[in-house]
Amino acid sequence: MSCKVGVLLSGCGFLDGSEIHEAVFTLLHLDRHGVEAVCAAPRGAQRHVVDHATGKPAPGPSRDVLVEAARIARGRIVDLATLGARQLDGLILPGGFGAAKNLSDFADQGAAATVHAEVARLLREMHAAKKPIGAICIAPAVVAAVLGRSAHPRLTIGNDPGTAAALRQLGAVHQDCAVADCVVDAEQRVVTTPAYMCAARVHEVAAGIGRLVDALVGMLGAHR
Amino acid sequence: MSCKVGVLLSGCGFLDGSEIHEAVFTLLHLDRHGVEAVCAAPRGAQRHVVDHATGKPAPGPSRDVLVEAARIARGRIVDLATLGARQLDGLILPGGFGAAKNLSDFADQGAAATVHAEVARLLREMHAAKKPIGAICIAPAVVAAVLGRSAHPRLTIGNDPGTAAALRQLGAVHQDCAVADCVVDAEQRVVTTPAYMCAARVHEVAAGIGRLVDALVGMLGAHR
Repeated sequence: MSCKVGVLLSGCGFLDGSEIHEAVFTLLHLDRHGVEAVCAAPRGAQRHVVDHATGKPAPGPSRDVLVEAARIARGRIVDLATLGARQLDGLILPGGFGAAKNLSDFADQGAAATVHAEVARLLREMHAAKKPIGAICIAPAVVAAVLGRSAHPRLTIGNDPGTAAALRQLGAVHQDCAVADCVVDAEQRVVTTPAYMCAARVHEVAAGIGRLVDALVGMLGAHR
Repeated sequence: MSCKVGVLLSGCGFLDGSEIHEAVFTLLHLDRHGVEAVCAAPRGAQRHVVDHATGKPAPGPSRDVLVEAARIARGRIVDLATLGARQLDGLILPGGFGAAKNLSDFADQGAAATVHAEVARLLREMHAAKKPIGAICIAPAVVAAVLGRSAHPRLTIGNDPGTAAALRQLGAVHQDCAVADCVVDAEQRVVTTPAYMCAARVHEVAAGIGRLVDALVGMLGAHR
């Protein structure tokens, strides 16, 4: 029976949802390992909708986080509220502002961030079950906001001093990291890679996420 | 000076726009070759908006093809109306229903399809300049609708008999092809790969698009 790794999405587009390239490379590398990706997202309105051609907030109705995330998942997506650590062997959070706007309020609150209740629940369940957690780009901020003060995971968001300082305030140990590499906390089973937090080329982002997935897959089943 | 290849997008999501995975793998493989991707899309309303969680048309306002495509392009996108063959060394059309709904009406009209005027113009310009054209998934239907009766390009949409028959009616020569492979018409400079037209795994789609980009990059500059 193949392993299952959750891919927690936050919309579709780096300014108001999941960073699309990072999410797709996560799916690619899991598939390369023969691991089944279980795409999930919370239901509920996005914090806002951004016009990605102008970078400015778009007028008009809000969009649902899960419905937009389903674009990346090609329709195969589950409601986060129905997903528990029991159904998964690992969990990966791609980046994009959605992680800091829809899964948490880190974009506004920084080190005072709070996390979506279902996201916090699943992260705590995974950590308690010693199942590995991967986080990409800005998503390590979500992991730090949930597990920082209890588990002090070692993680990276690249080399941005301000964001790294906020992660330290949240209790995490920050380590600088190049875009094509990743940081592995073997004890806490947390793997992170900076991706587009660094000024990066597409193939470097793909390489860094490849390393993260390699490291996470290497930990699968170790909790048994 | 690096080569530039246009990536013609049609929205963001396989049911009403560009197939996201195919578009991202196109950007990845171009970057791997050090080729600059120039993302472009036509302005104007999508034919409709589909809820990708249910697969059904969504109520609410229409969305602009270029504005949604900008999500895949991370904001760096040009209006197709301003883009000519003079600015490009090659052109790739990812798939998704957007190619058959927004760039053309092939989804409804099949072999009687007509093509968006600016899309047809750019394809004719590229072909006349002997610059290579790549098309993925259902997008070869757009190429066939523009160039089929004059140039009879050899191309593939995989192995679906009905769609292949429509391409033949449009004047193209259809060749069956496996998902991880591509079909190269060296004379007409048209390269195609079936991607999600076949029941495919993500890494197979990435591999097929890798081959398409390899073949197209091998043709760059040959018109000079």
